[in-house]
Amino acid sequence: MQDPIKLHEKLRGKIVVSSKIELNEETLPIAYTPGVAKASDVIAKDKSQVNKLTGRWNSVPVISDGSAVLGLGNIGPEAAMPVMEGKAAIFAQFAGVDAVPICLDTQDTEEIIKTVKYLAPSFCGINLEDISAPRCFEIERRLTEELDIPVFHDDQHGTAIVVLAGLINALKVVGKDKNVKIVISGAGAAGIAVTNLLFEYGFKNICMCDSSGVIADGRNNLNGYKENLLSQSSATCPIGDCNLALKDADVLIGVSKPGQFTAKDIETMNSDAIVFAMANPIPEIMPDEAKKGGAKVIATGRSDFPNQINNALVFPGLFRGLLDNEIQKVTVEIKLAVAEAIANMIKNPTSEKIIPSIFEKGLVPTIANALKDFDKMGKRKEKK
Amino acid sequence: MQDPIKLHEKLRGKIVVSSKIELNEETLPIAYTPGVAKASDVIAKDKSQVNKLTGRWNSVPVISDGSAVLGLGNIGPEAAMPVMEGKAAIFAQFAGVDAVPICLDTQDTEEIIKTVKYLAPSFCGINLEDISAPRCFEIERRLTEELDIPVFHDDQHGTAIVVLAGLINALKVVGKDKNVKIVISGAGAAGIAVTNLLFEYGFKNICMCDSSGVIADGRNNLNGYKENLLSQSSATCPIGDCNLALKDADVLIGVSKPGQFTAKDIETMNSDAIVFAMANPIPEIMPDEAKKGGAKVIATGRSDFPNQINNALVFPGLFRGLLDNEIQKVTVEIKLAVAEAIANMIKNPTSEKIIPSIFEKGLVPTIANALKDFDKMGKRKEKK
Repeated sequence: MQDPIKLHEKLRGKIVVSSKIELNEETLPIAYTPGVAKASDVIAKDKSQVNKLTGRWNSVPVISDGSAVLGLGNIGPEAAMPVMEGKAAIFAQFAGVDAVPICLDTQDTEEIIKTVKYLAPSFCGINLEDISAPRCFEIERRLTEELDIPVFHDDQHGTAIVVLAGLINALKVVGKDKNVKIVISGAGAAGIAVTNLLFEYGFKNICMCDSSGVIADGRNNLNGYKENLLSQSSATCPIGDCNLALKDADVLIGVSKPGQFTAKDIETMNSDAIVFAMANPIPEIMPDEAKKGGAKVIATGRSDFPNQINNALVFPGLFRGLLDNEIQKVTVEIKLAVAEAIANMIKNPTSEKIIPSIFEKGLVPTIANALKDFDKMGKRKEKK
Repeated sequence: MQDPIKLHEKLRGKIVVSSKIELNEETLPIAYTPGVAKASDVIAKDKSQVNKLTGRWNSVPVISDGSAVLGLGNIGPEAAMPVMEGKAAIFAQFAGVDAVPICLDTQDTEEIIKTVKYLAPSFCGINLEDISAPRCFEIERRLTEELDIPVFHDDQHGTAIVVLAGLINALKVVGKDKNVKIVISGAGAAGIAVTNLLFEYGFKNICMCDSSGVIADGRNNLNGYKENLLSQSSATCPIGDCNLALKDADVLIGVSKPGQFTAKDIETMNSDAIVFAMANPIPEIMPDEAKKGGAKVIATGRSDFPNQINNALVFPGLFRGLLDNEIQKVTVEIKLAVAEAIANMIKNPTSEKIIPSIFEKGLVPTIANALKDFDKMGKRKEKK
């Protein structure tokens, strides 16, 4: 791999802003003063026209406070910039979305909410990114309630959607159903969102682990989010280290930290185990080690192994669909529909291919197309 | 002229964001996860590296609250979007600056200041736009003090710089000097900034008018900004309508409202009068009417008459120079230097040509080049 620092030094920015029209003596007085006043006047009389007469309809900020960046943690807004720029470049190339990296110099929940609301007249959707839990839950919930444009925290829901998509196909490969026992290691933003979405899809037999071990009845240091998830589970989860929970489990989903599990841990799982080890860049268990333990379907977040489970599979197509269909809320129904649409792209899943590649041409249109069935509140339209 | 609404409907946005690099199986893991973590890590250890490894060094938001948009007034942030987009397109095409339109859903001075400060980790300069007086003065002053990137309110200083540039050459045409008597009609953001900069350049004999008439000793409804300017003037300004002040004046600069003056008013001025009538799109007096009244050099804000005095002459080159030279403050010295650089582009000024066109190839480099002489605090470097 080329040295990332050298590439970043050479590029000095991964996106570029250009004028859509050549500004000359003829066009400048129309695109700018005095002609532009006519467009402003129309919008002044009817705000909704802003989406017809400007680029707002296609503009999305990638907003972070730098509090939970990749595996690096709370490194601040400047250091988050390369990541947000990378996402903006992906938005541009794969989905034609005009995305702008915005890293905020505040980590105060209320200030972030207020700032994003102030920015809303310029954008038709909000992509939140790398904001630490539990603040991210409150920020997303409030913005979703208070804005009339879709708000999507990618670390949570991008991860949840792509995990569900992969799991749907992995279960086809091993011939198991929704009754499988699932262990989710990691109870941060991603882990909680993954667990929530799996419950919504119909899985019930789920144990979660956080940094203190298995989340189980009898633990007394659980926040409301974890208690809520525990109350929804039909599983009997043992108090103790996370690897205890793996006994007789069918699925392990890691969204936690590198090198957490060994082949021996996987051996305690049921046969034909499914292991998604998504810590980046070093997974919870390396694929060869998981295989040694008997895992049948293995996925990671990395591009150098089969089955890369990456948020970048989701957000470009999702926002393309949200913007094109003027959808204001990203509902559970939408998340499930997107996961199914991604899963359905693989006609015959195998242990080496449960998920499409981000470079598959049909990916963005397939996801965007799945959103045509939803109204502006994110509810499925009634069939005529 | 093509219908501006049709053009805006067709474009649906005047700028486009693209990826600088083709993202493929080889480049994506470097530009995005996992490679991007290396760049973030470097910046986490040394914030200043953000300008080497990301596009921040070349990024500027065009920020408005929609409170004083063109001649339209307080039309709100959505309706301001076409104008801010137009500026962003000009920034992109003429100066290669990655500019982003940001229209804020607040008109509270403190909230605007705070929001812009929160945005600062993503940008290397701030272009304020169409924010009403007197709030714009406080917002610009505070942000200039509290941020270490340049802050520039274009309605004030873009106008002031381009007016001074035009006036320098207009005086050459009529063979007059800094002792001319100047009347400035309009005491909003632009009028006050123009007057300030003319004083800084060395003009002293200046009368200003606001909507209540001439600003003169004995008026009791003056705010601090106007009182301050009055105290600097050597002129004896008569109490009354603005046209009274024109008697024996050499220069009229209009930054107020359409159709304010007639040929008869211009007739009361000294011979070889200079008239800059910059209200847009309808000037304070139409050029043929000013000519009838005896004006020798006439300029407007319009592209369909000679001598278009337009902020767009200034801000692309100014920001190109600020960014390239990592200048953090836009000082009076810089404003004067830019005005002189623009004026000097016209080797032999005539009554029909006192100012270059925005399409002149040398314009942006000439302005940017003039900023090479300044240190990061905007002070002129000592000659070695």
